[in-house]
Amino acid sequence: MDEEKLRQLLEQLKRDEISIDEVLDNLKELPFKDLGFAKVDHHRELRKGYPEVVYGEGKTEEQVVEIVSEMLKKDSNILVTRTSQKTYQAVKEICSQAEYHHLARAIVIRRRKIEVSDTYIAVVTAGTSDIPVAEEAALTAEMMGNRVERIFDVGVAGIHRLLAHLNVIRGAKVVIVVAGMEGALASVVGGLVERPVIAVPTSVGYGASFKGLAALLAMLNSCASGVAVVNIDNGFGAGYLASLINRG
Amino acid sequence: MDEEKLRQLLEQLKRDEISIDEVLDNLKELPFKDLGFAKVDHHRELRKGYPEVVYGEGKTEEQVVEIVSEMLKKDSNILVTRTSQKTYQAVKEICSQAEYHHLARAIVIRRRKIEVSDTYIAVVTAGTSDIPVAEEAALTAEMMGNRVERIFDVGVAGIHRLLAHLNVIRGAKVVIVVAGMEGALASVVGGLVERPVIAVPTSVGYGASFKGLAALLAMLNSCASGVAVVNIDNGFGAGYLASLINRG
Amino acid sequence: MDEEKLRQLLEQLKRDEISIDEVLDNLKELPFKDLGFAKVDHHRELRKGYPEVVYGEGKTEEQVVEIVSEMLKKDSNILVTRTSQKTYQAVKEICSQAEYHHLARAIVIRRRKIEVSDTYIAVVTAGTSDIPVAEEAALTAEMMGNRVERIFDVGVAGIHRLLAHLNVIRGAKVVIVVAGMEGALASVVGGLVERPVIAVPTSVGYGASFKGLAALLAMLNSCASGVAVVNIDNGFGAGYLASLINRG
Amino acid sequence: MDEEKLRQLLEQLKRDEISIDEVLDNLKELPFKDLGFAKVDHHRELRKGYPEVVYGEGKTEEQVVEIVSEMLKKDSNILVTRTSQKTYQAVKEICSQAEYHHLARAIVIRRRKIEVSDTYIAVVTAGTSDIPVAEEAALTAEMMGNRVERIFDVGVAGIHRLLAHLNVIRGAKVVIVVAGMEGALASVVGGLVERPVIAVPTSVGYGASFKGLAALLAMLNSCASGVAVVNIDNGFGAGYLASLINRG
Amino acid sequence: MDEEKLRQLLEQLKRDEISIDEVLDNLKELPFKDLGFAKVDHHRELRKGYPEVVYGEGKTEEQVVEIVSEMLKKDSNILVTRTSQKTYQAVKEICSQAEYHHLARAIVIRRRKIEVSDTYIAVVTAGTSDIPVAEEAALTAEMMGNRVERIFDVGVAGIHRLLAHLNVIRGAKVVIVVAGMEGALASVVGGLVERPVIAVPTSVGYGASFKGLAALLAMLNSCASGVAVVNIDNGFGAGYLASLINRG
Amino acid sequence: MDEEKLRQLLEQLKRDEISIDEVLDNLKELPFKDLGFAKVDHHRELRKGYPEVVYGEGKTEEQVVEIVSEMLKKDSNILVTRTSQKTYQAVKEICSQAEYHHLARAIVIRRRKIEVSDTYIAVVTAGTSDIPVAEEAALTAEMMGNRVERIFDVGVAGIHRLLAHLNVIRGAKVVIVVAGMEGALASVVGGLVERPVIAVPTSVGYGASFKGLAALLAMLNSCASGVAVVNIDNGFGAGYLASLINRG
Amino acid sequence: MDEEKLRQLLEQLKRDEISIDEVLDNLKELPFKDLGFAKVDHHRELRKGYPEVVYGEGKTEEQVVEIVSEMLKKDSNILVTRTSQKTYQAVKEICSQAEYHHLARAIVIRRRKIEVSDTYIAVVTAGTSDIPVAEEAALTAEMMGNRVERIFDVGVAGIHRLLAHLNVIRGAKVVIVVAGMEGALASVVGGLVERPVIAVPTSVGYGASFKGLAALLAMLNSCASGVAVVNIDNGFGAGYLASLINRG
Amino acid sequence: MDEEKLRQLLEQLKRDEISIDEVLDNLKELPFKDLGFAKVDHHRELRKGYPEVVYGEGKTEEQVVEIVSEMLKKDSNILVTRTSQKTYQAVKEICSQAEYHHLARAIVIRRRKIEVSDTYIAVVTAGTSDIPVAEEAALTAEMMGNRVERIFDVGVAGIHRLLAHLNVIRGAKVVIVVAGMEGALASVVGGLVERPVIAVPTSVGYGASFKGLAALLAMLNSCASGVAVVNIDNGFGAGYLASLINRG
Repeated sequence: MDEEKLRQLLEQLKRDEISIDEVLDNLKELPFKDLGFAKVDHHRELRKGYPEVVYGEGKTEEQVVEIVSEMLKKDSNILVTRTSQKTYQAVKEICSQAEYHHLARAIVIRRRKIEVSDTYIAVVTAGTSDIPVAEEAALTAEMMGNRVERIFDVGVAGIHRLLAHLNVIRGAKVVIVVAGMEGALASVVGGLVERPVIAVPTSVGYGASFKGLAALLAMLNSCASGVAVVNIDNGFGAGYLASLINRG
Repeated sequence: MDEEKLRQLLEQLKRDEISIDEVLDNLKELPFKDLGFAKVDHHRELRKGYPEVVYGEGKTEEQVVEIVSEMLKKDSNILVTRTSQKTYQAVKEICSQAEYHHLARAIVIRRRKIEVSDTYIAVVTAGTSDIPVAEEAALTAEMMGNRVERIFDVGVAGIHRLLAHLNVIRGAKVVIVVAGMEGALASVVGGLVERPVIAVPTSVGYGASFKGLAALLAMLNSCASGVAVVNIDNGFGAGYLASLINRG
Repeated sequence: MDEEKLRQLLEQLKRDEISIDEVLDNLKELPFKDLGFAKVDHHRELRKGYPEVVYGEGKTEEQVVEIVSEMLKKDSNILVTRTSQKTYQAVKEICSQAEYHHLARAIVIRRRKIEVSDTYIAVVTAGTSDIPVAEEAALTAEMMGNRVERIFDVGVAGIHRLLAHLNVIRGAKVVIVVAGMEGALASVVGGLVERPVIAVPTSVGYGASFKGLAALLAMLNSCASGVAVVNIDNGFGAGYLASLINRG
Repeated sequence: MDEEKLRQLLEQLKRDEISIDEVLDNLKELPFKDLGFAKVDHHRELRKGYPEVVYGEGKTEEQVVEIVSEMLKKDSNILVTRTSQKTYQAVKEICSQAEYHHLARAIVIRRRKIEVSDTYIAVVTAGTSDIPVAEEAALTAEMMGNRVERIFDVGVAGIHRLLAHLNVIRGAKVVIVVAGMEGALASVVGGLVERPVIAVPTSVGYGASFKGLAALLAMLNSCASGVAVVNIDNGFGAGYLASLINRG
Repeated sequence: MDEEKLRQLLEQLKRDEISIDEVLDNLKELPFKDLGFAKVDHHRELRKGYPEVVYGEGKTEEQVVEIVSEMLKKDSNILVTRTSQKTYQAVKEICSQAEYHHLARAIVIRRRKIEVSDTYIAVVTAGTSDIPVAEEAALTAEMMGNRVERIFDVGVAGIHRLLAHLNVIRGAKVVIVVAGMEGALASVVGGLVERPVIAVPTSVGYGASFKGLAALLAMLNSCASGVAVVNIDNGFGAGYLASLINRG
Repeated sequence: MDEEKLRQLLEQLKRDEISIDEVLDNLKELPFKDLGFAKVDHHRELRKGYPEVVYGEGKTEEQVVEIVSEMLKKDSNILVTRTSQKTYQAVKEICSQAEYHHLARAIVIRRRKIEVSDTYIAVVTAGTSDIPVAEEAALTAEMMGNRVERIFDVGVAGIHRLLAHLNVIRGAKVVIVVAGMEGALASVVGGLVERPVIAVPTSVGYGASFKGLAALLAMLNSCASGVAVVNIDNGFGAGYLASLINRG
Repeated sequence: MDEEKLRQLLEQLKRDEISIDEVLDNLKELPFKDLGFAKVDHHRELRKGYPEVVYGEGKTEEQVVEIVSEMLKKDSNILVTRTSQKTYQAVKEICSQAEYHHLARAIVIRRRKIEVSDTYIAVVTAGTSDIPVAEEAALTAEMMGNRVERIFDVGVAGIHRLLAHLNVIRGAKVVIVVAGMEGALASVVGGLVERPVIAVPTSVGYGASFKGLAALLAMLNSCASGVAVVNIDNGFGAGYLASLINRG
Repeated sequence: MDEEKLRQLLEQLKRDEISIDEVLDNLKELPFKDLGFAKVDHHRELRKGYPEVVYGEGKTEEQVVEIVSEMLKKDSNILVTRTSQKTYQAVKEICSQAEYHHLARAIVIRRRKIEVSDTYIAVVTAGTSDIPVAEEAALTAEMMGNRVERIFDVGVAGIHRLLAHLNVIRGAKVVIVVAGMEGALASVVGGLVERPVIAVPTSVGYGASFKGLAALLAMLNSCASGVAVVNIDNGFGAGYLASLINRG
């Protein structure tokens, strides 16, 4: 369409209906509004097959339903994060394909087959309380076409449990480590594997954990190389980044 | 050697010189000290070609020289980060191959040819003051066999400069964004490219930048997906992680 | 009036009805209570046409109704910020002119025509969650006689959306930028326009956003010149200041 | 020039030397690199008469001299902030017009006459220790063509001194308040004048001032309307913003 | 009683029933357990007439009633701070003299006449939201026998209101200043009076007030001499300390 | 079992059914998964008699009941911390031996007799509000076979109360000090006894106590030697550590 | 003098030398500049005998000498705080009466006899490192005419030393407690005496003392009533406030 | 001596030279000043053989020499922590027995034979930069008569190194873990051993380590039971506490 407009302009020019100066004036107005748009969004094509994502926190049932019903007009898969079972039931009414993942607190609508990568992402948690965040990461990655291996509850207070799963972790193309409290698991895993490690601090803990700050700082100061950190409880971000790396 | 010991044990068993119980007792003692060692370090073989690294900060000239002279006994390349020209001169005396990278404040000793990857890492900085950290990242990545494209001084206060280099940034397999002050560049780049972005906050700034804390928090809260963060001024960490991703 | 009193005193002096000492004693008492008052409040006349403002947070329905009913005795317009629909209904009962602005969570009572400025204030938000704060700013500015242009949801993760509205933003006399999370939008806008930018960090975000602290610090450290910051979520303050600048 | 290229393209089109499709292909490549550039920088023309600015902190004598000698090729005025007398002497050698402002720790090179605004900016400080930051603000504003009135050392511990200068402060188009310690002056001035107030917290103080944090927080929480805040010790930023408002 | 024991010991000594060494051994055991008690508490006699105080926060109705009923066995006055009307009604049932002070959220039981001091304490607040804390301070001081003058809502955004009450404030023996937000009032009052000023930061405010931290830091950094600070919202502590100073 | 496998391997070797190389290959796979397991957990045998512990916070009634019913299959004692009376009643239904400790908010199931140590642990609190945390510590220690002496409400504002109990405190093998607000009790006790002191900051307090941070920092900076600190409100951790020391 | 001017005006009016309007015009100009001055400064008369004070920190030798030489034109005593022996020697050259107090790092010039109060201020320190701050407080108080009793190095790690001096502390009209590290001494003293306690946190300590923050928070959260706090290391402020209370 | 006075009093009583009342009056004055002293210090006898300790930081050479020369009058061993080689040389001049421990930055004077405990303390560090703090801990413990086993540079980034020393660590009566950066080692060790673990965060690190804060928080939030924490870099405190536990 934008191209159409441009083409029309140039044709008018060729037909001498407008002057070169008029074309120039028109072009000056276009760059960002029209041409620019196309250009900047050009890379979105890479996203083919990626789900549409709704960040559910702070949104009412009505708002989620409205957004989802809009998305349903296109044929992509849909992922609603940080949402409740109650919202799920409302979504279910407008789309019977909707499923609810309790642990991840997420709604998933699969309408296109997702091709699964050969390489996989390992998602590792320190404790059982870290599982909701880990599931959000895992589900995000799965919706983006990644194979995911879950290794949960292998925190450093019982390091043999972690060591017992070392082969699976080392086999991954990228590792997501989810841990609250002192967040030490990220460093231990980072020291054991030669893979990119995405550390997700969680708000699990109390007192001087300051809602995840202790784990966040620990992970940023990891003595192991190859570790980077996302925001506290940001399972979605970790899954998304891991997918970019795995499918890279 | 460890394997040798084990083999001897088993041979002794076969020759009936020791009992099965004695072998078992011996094995119980081994796991971590002997077998374990081999196992845990097994993955280090992947690192072939990687340089030996010395973290120079807080080390005296004598200490650096001593560590480097030890490393010179092996044939790997050597990288000394966060060091001074003065220390470089001392190192130069024991190894004429040593070079000093002023911007990165690093000593490099290349003794083995480094094969360069086809895909590349883009290193982007917001301002000129962020360059030392960016060069540490770039040099680290180069020493690990990565092609690096540098795009410096394209901060968000003049966003057209960034946009002018968009194609180079988008062509990278992974992008390192180095920025101090408000650290906004990470989000802007993260929004423009569909690649993993490693954000490095720098301590550039004053007052309420709190030595890089402002940039760190901003990067952790990036509204763009696909961004993870390393410690303030941690150019080495970013370069190392980017290499793991690029050479994946 | 105060002047009247003084004049009377001096006339009494001239008529010898009181002594110089008595005049002096009277004057010593006056400065702040009387003269001073007039003097200090003198500038309030500039505020003509400005609305009376009630900060609604933490006030009960009864309290708001009582304050508003007192204000209704004068003929100025009235703005109640940070209030609920329930309080609005109570106010409606004593003043049928009252309107409720859902997004801004504000009650407005227009009893005098507001003359609108030729120049305008642009109010820009990063995300949709920032809109309540932005609407508080916009409404405040409008109640103070300013034309306001709203450009919402143009955050830096999709910078082309922002660029598409650049002309409107550049045409403003002053720009209010409302953003949570990493607050990068303030720097980007500050780099694109040569106008005063008032940045409003919002508490939108989670984890390391620390209820708006990340955005606040980012905005204070903006690499763009011409940016100043108000308190987290302080839409009213931004609208008020923008009005002072626009109507200057 | 860019326009020139475009014009040539269009002339080629008219002369049938290239096709419409070829023009379109060319245009798609242009936006940011060429057209975009022009467009984004277009607003810089508004800055006519503004000085070139060098942020001197952390730069060596040599670096400043090099940057300044580059700037001297153009004919604009030059301002070097946060620099030393020693650097000044080096600059003096390449430009005899250079002057050093001790209090502001700034080098000024005036090569074009600066037209001074009729309206003025008031720069107010709480104590004498705040003067360097205030002078940086004042000098910046003056270099940008603003009349500046200085009212120094009128902190709230002796409020009569402030009240004695109220008329001058109220006569300003915009007021810059510079204060360390508890930063209360911003609120008091904000309550006394109906003008935009730009508050600059300074790092003056000790102990629980936490290098300006106390003043910063106080200013952000000002109970007076019409106050916005810039970074700690950011005299330049305040002067720049005040100029945008005053000359707006 | 303790004295009795000692006396018996000494009498036994005189009667040669025990040796000097035995007395010494006994004395070594006594100091803190027996003698010490008396000694350390000796100064409590100064407190005569002071009320018994119950800190009500976090206590259930039942707990408060139980503590009060215990106190009623003695004849001192009773003050229950930070409590609810509901708790008051429960207390009322066991003591008809109980009164509830809504603003101060306190229960008062007056059973002994309180002699009132000639000199007085001034309690000053910045805003109306600071009044509950101020009333807690005022009531505490009154229950301890002090005359209190209340000057409320004289914040620095309208400094003439404060100046209008200057004589009353200056006439006090000690001044309590209660303020939230930026807490500037403490400095302004401290600069205007030559009296001890007890500053009480309140949690009034939002965003960067960080629940009173901004006011707390401001007050600690007061540029006025003669100001000391108590904990956020600690009206009781301020009233108690002011009483110690006033009744000195 | 693991040992069984190993023994079988060795027996196969002796019977020449497998080669030494095959045994070696098998062993390389074992370390962590099998042998390692045994080894790492080997020290758990020391824990004989220790209770199984469930951290109740954030767990639903159903979850606690499920975990407990699993534990009941073994014969060890059970301790559920940070739980409610309601959860207790649910547990009671599946185990009539369950008791609820109101102050400690803990469920205890004693199925094996606990031998009590001769030496004892003193648990000291500053105020009555610190008692729940103290009781959690005491109960934990008791369940681990320690004699515990409780000395509650001996805060430093009335130091004679503390001194009166000095002998009991000094007689302990290790002392747990539980205090909120300014946490001074840890230093005072640390100065009076020559025993290990475990300090537990509590979240008791308000305003600048920042939910226990003030006490935590105070305890970390204790001027008395021999004091170490656990997390805010971490009664369980203190009791556990004290038991390790007492039963050492 | 101001009164003199006013009286002249009124006499001129009575003599018909000026009109009532002229008097009014004059008066309008006066309030703050003249009348106000007198009024606001009126209370300074109470300060008779108080020293002139120079805050020496950050001032050069030349600056101090210049300020002192100006002050020497009047006959009041002079106190220069936070200054060096080197500055003292420079001051000595213009005033032979100058003395240097090493511990307090202060210069004192006594030119008027100071009458000493009957009641006294007790200055108590926790450690020997706190003495410089304590001496600043004591010297300030002495220069303001107060008798001061020093009780140093009686920190809570050896509480018997404090108890040994209890009578002297209890005999004071007001107590200054100076302590770094965990600042517990303020609470202990506050619990032992029924006097106003001014707590001065010092920056003595390391690590988690965060330059006095730990002591500051502890003191603000004191469980003892009657304690207020000044800024970290603010000996002058404590001495000044104590003098206001003691001489009250 | 104090006892002498008491004895004299009692003898005077027996000789009827004073009355029982007079003795009582005298005793009331004594408790803390005299008797008390003896009592409180009574437990110091337990310290027999413990060294006298001088905290060297911030003390001049002269001050250390003076304190040491005073201590030399008694015959106990002496430990000067956090001191320089230069100070050591000054001490050496007055005491030829003095030795300097470079790593621990400590002076040791051994004049009495130290009996060494059978059980031992393990001191474990994460990196080589943590060694100075670890040596301070080890030396302190040794001076107090403990056998110490050092296991250095076994950080979690290479966990096999730690596992290789597990037997030595498990054999200790108490373990000191010294670690900077993310402090994860404390949790890993705490999970592997059933012994009291004293965690010492160090200021090793940069950026978001915030001078040891990250390690401190991590250690306080350890997911392993049996861990307590001392101040950042507080090697002495850890060694002292470990000695109390080991020799307990």
